[in-house]
Amino acid sequence: MTVANSAQMEGFLYDRVSRHVMGLVESGTLKPGDRAPSLRQLSQQLKVSITTVKQAYVALEDQGVLSVRPQSGFYVNNRVEQAPQVQLRSTTSFKPRKVRFGELFEEIFQIANDPNIVPLGAAVPSVDLMPVKGLIRATNRAASRLAESVLDYCFPPGNAELRRQIARQYLQLGMSVSPDDVIVTSGATEALHLCLQAVTRRGDIIAVESPTYFSVLRLIERMGLLAVEIDTDPETGMRLDALENVLETMDVKAILSVPNFNNPTGALMPEENKRRMAELIAEHNIPLIEDDVYGELYFDEQRPPVIKKFDTNGLVLTCSSFSKTLAPGYRIGWVLAGRYRDEVLEWKQATTSAVASLTQQAVSDYLRSGEYERHLVRMRKAFREQVEKMRFTVAHHFPEGTRMTNPRGGFVLWVEMPRGVDCLDVFNRALEAGISITPGIIFSATRRYRNFIRISCGHSWSAEIEQAVKKLGEIVAA
Amino acid sequence: MTVANSAQMEGFLYDRVSRHVMGLVESGTLKPGDRAPSLRQLSQQLKVSITTVKQAYVALEDQGVLSVRPQSGFYVNNRVEQAPQVQLRSTTSFKPRKVRFGELFEEIFQIANDPNIVPLGAAVPSVDLMPVKGLIRATNRAASRLAESVLDYCFPPGNAELRRQIARQYLQLGMSVSPDDVIVTSGATEALHLCLQAVTRRGDIIAVESPTYFSVLRLIERMGLLAVEIDTDPETGMRLDALENVLETMDVKAILSVPNFNNPTGALMPEENKRRMAELIAEHNIPLIEDDVYGELYFDEQRPPVIKKFDTNGLVLTCSSFSKTLAPGYRIGWVLAGRYRDEVLEWKQATTSAVASLTQQAVSDYLRSGEYERHLVRMRKAFREQVEKMRFTVAHHFPEGTRMTNPRGGFVLWVEMPRGVDCLDVFNRALEAGISITPGIIFSATRRYRNFIRISCGHSWSAEIEQAVKKLGEIVAA
Repeated sequence: MTVANSAQMEGFLYDRVSRHVMGLVESGTLKPGDRAPSLRQLSQQLKVSITTVKQAYVALEDQGVLSVRPQSGFYVNNRVEQAPQVQLRSTTSFKPRKVRFGELFEEIFQIANDPNIVPLGAAVPSVDLMPVKGLIRATNRAASRLAESVLDYCFPPGNAELRRQIARQYLQLGMSVSPDDVIVTSGATEALHLCLQAVTRRGDIIAVESPTYFSVLRLIERMGLLAVEIDTDPETGMRLDALENVLETMDVKAILSVPNFNNPTGALMPEENKRRMAELIAEHNIPLIEDDVYGELYFDEQRPPVIKKFDTNGLVLTCSSFSKTLAPGYRIGWVLAGRYRDEVLEWKQATTSAVASLTQQAVSDYLRSGEYERHLVRMRKAFREQVEKMRFTVAHHFPEGTRMTNPRGGFVLWVEMPRGVDCLDVFNRALEAGISITPGIIFSATRRYRNFIRISCGHSWSAEIEQAVKKLGEIVAA
Repeated sequence: MTVANSAQMEGFLYDRVSRHVMGLVESGTLKPGDRAPSLRQLSQQLKVSITTVKQAYVALEDQGVLSVRPQSGFYVNNRVEQAPQVQLRSTTSFKPRKVRFGELFEEIFQIANDPNIVPLGAAVPSVDLMPVKGLIRATNRAASRLAESVLDYCFPPGNAELRRQIARQYLQLGMSVSPDDVIVTSGATEALHLCLQAVTRRGDIIAVESPTYFSVLRLIERMGLLAVEIDTDPETGMRLDALENVLETMDVKAILSVPNFNNPTGALMPEENKRRMAELIAEHNIPLIEDDVYGELYFDEQRPPVIKKFDTNGLVLTCSSFSKTLAPGYRIGWVLAGRYRDEVLEWKQATTSAVASLTQQAVSDYLRSGEYERHLVRMRKAFREQVEKMRFTVAHHFPEGTRMTNPRGGFVLWVEMPRGVDCLDVFNRALEAGISITPGIIFSATRRYRNFIRISCGHSWSAEIEQAVKKLGEIVAA
């Protein structure tokens, strides 16, 4: 069983310092221009090392709260004027934060593959919901029938028949997508990376939802980009008034959004907002990277449209994959990159070249068999039921003051615990009890969502999961 | 049949301008400080558009040959002092060059998959040399036996048994590699990209061989890095005296080298040079990215060592793959990243996450079967014979003044044609005749090697190939 390691402990202490100083600033005890407490003073007061205080101060400097003056110490800044409910934070360059995020990430991914941990952490759908037999049959057939060609390269943009099948999927949305528009990638993760490479440069500002999927934040951090976190409604997604405000006041180079069943909130952006978003980016001539990996997993009657449907300027780059619906391990994603198609293709060729020929062929054959649509119907029903059961069980076992989302698709639940409950504490104590969840703070570069956790409902409901949620409730209440 | 497109034509004209101006500079007709001919003047003289002259001038500015003075025109620079046989050139930011390279690359890769073209271009081994049956058998077995786990993610660093098998391969070199040292990647291309991401930043200078594999140059260009091209001996590889000189005079952030059967020269760096290289990078504390994809394809008695064998400081990042020896389409590569292991792993997680589980498992099972070593013995023999036949045939059919390498491994031949023969001309005319070769100029950012071509011997010898080489000889002689 993993327990909090020293880096995490350090993280706790360091956050205690940040919170303390932010408290002084927000209460007005410390005003703009005031000198912050000295390192030694705060070290003694909070019983943490001087190094930890130093790290926390550097982070606050990085966040624009403090400034360092040589030979003098740290001082409180004039806060930059901000749009309401929108915060600008750098996600880059501050070493301790990066390292700590990295370790947490690694732990989360390692846990995801550990059969001894109840898997409520990673947003990975259980393989028992996948069409294992049908896909393996398609795979074996493709391998035997096309042995030589599956051993050979299938250079970008990828398998022509697969691209045709992917393009056809957009017919249900009333969109006309050409196979030439489709570039096959190694999952949606690579698609997002290629899009960011194509439309941004180190130091650029990009607008993202808050909260945002932590892997996106990690990617942004690695690439040296700055994230403006746009406040996001748990029902309707990114707030367009806030976005508009930011677009008018900052030099935003791209927007990254998950309009359909956002991770972690499950928010679904209404069609009128999608239309407005398409207008907004046209007005500002800004590319929008749209992550649609959950789009097929809707609970209501209709497949929600992608923003690209309303984009008449080629400004939307829509990324998706079969990782949430068919086979994460096959690594088949794609991007419809609009006017950035050639640029994305060149990045693809230069950085990873071909995607595995065999898994491309197998997915293509499986799609052509017509089984996929039937499988999706079953899978949507399964996720809807799992999410319902999870909501019911959380409501029953978690303490008063707990709130949660009511997603209309996807398979994650965003849970707000009573104020004062620390998600990292819950994360560690759950892990000791053999349960994984995802701590809320990693869904924002600004460390908001300290009393939030994300619970994945990707696995079939079981007594074990029910017990685990009950145990989680006890941990949160304790 | 593809003929020269307008972008290529534009390329020709634009190079004519560059050559003309370089000729004036080299002959001393234009001295440092002199004003270069006006755009209009040169446009009329060389019968090309003003735009073309402008593009060529911007390229020359980018290369440090000319400077622009507002409202006045282009002037000849003082040439920067250079180590003998070493040239420093930026590979970034000049649009027309990039676009042109991109189109040529795309064409080369498209041709590689065209069954109607005699494939002497891309360095892709023929699938008929691959152990198709054995690998497909291993694949079908893995898919059926491990259906659920091949559908699921196999997160970085990758399949544990595969990493063990890869680590074991280094025993033959007397190296002790741990499975933990191995990070599985989507081919060696991704491995190189991850290493560059880990050890460089936009604007950094990296030292590469000259000539260098064009995909590496494209990657460097995309990433905004600057390449110092180190002169390279066709027998012994990168000249260490030249490298040392550069390391002492420039702020080189990394070295990228293909010491075993360099592409395109086939050069094999002698063991003493490898030891010296390891010392050099230790003295300068500079990481070395070593591309070893051809290392197993030796013609003589022994597997040549990797430079990493002599590295006691963790400064060498060794990249390789099974793409040249087993199955390009399976996309299984790896990197031993030394002290940069954690950094490379984080980049891997952030940018593409997992590699396909099925192809990892299949390769792992195939390696464990013991068939791989026997396959390699056959493959080395096949490549040795194919290279020998190609050399003989080129010697017979190409005009006097042709010179070529005598590689001791790999499967490419680097051919110097008589002075004045233009590789792009040969490329286009060969393509009209249904034959692909790779033009020499794309192996250097400075457009040297205009009278060179690379010929791949990756396909089994046939009457068709023999005829194609004869035809090539006629084209070169014409």
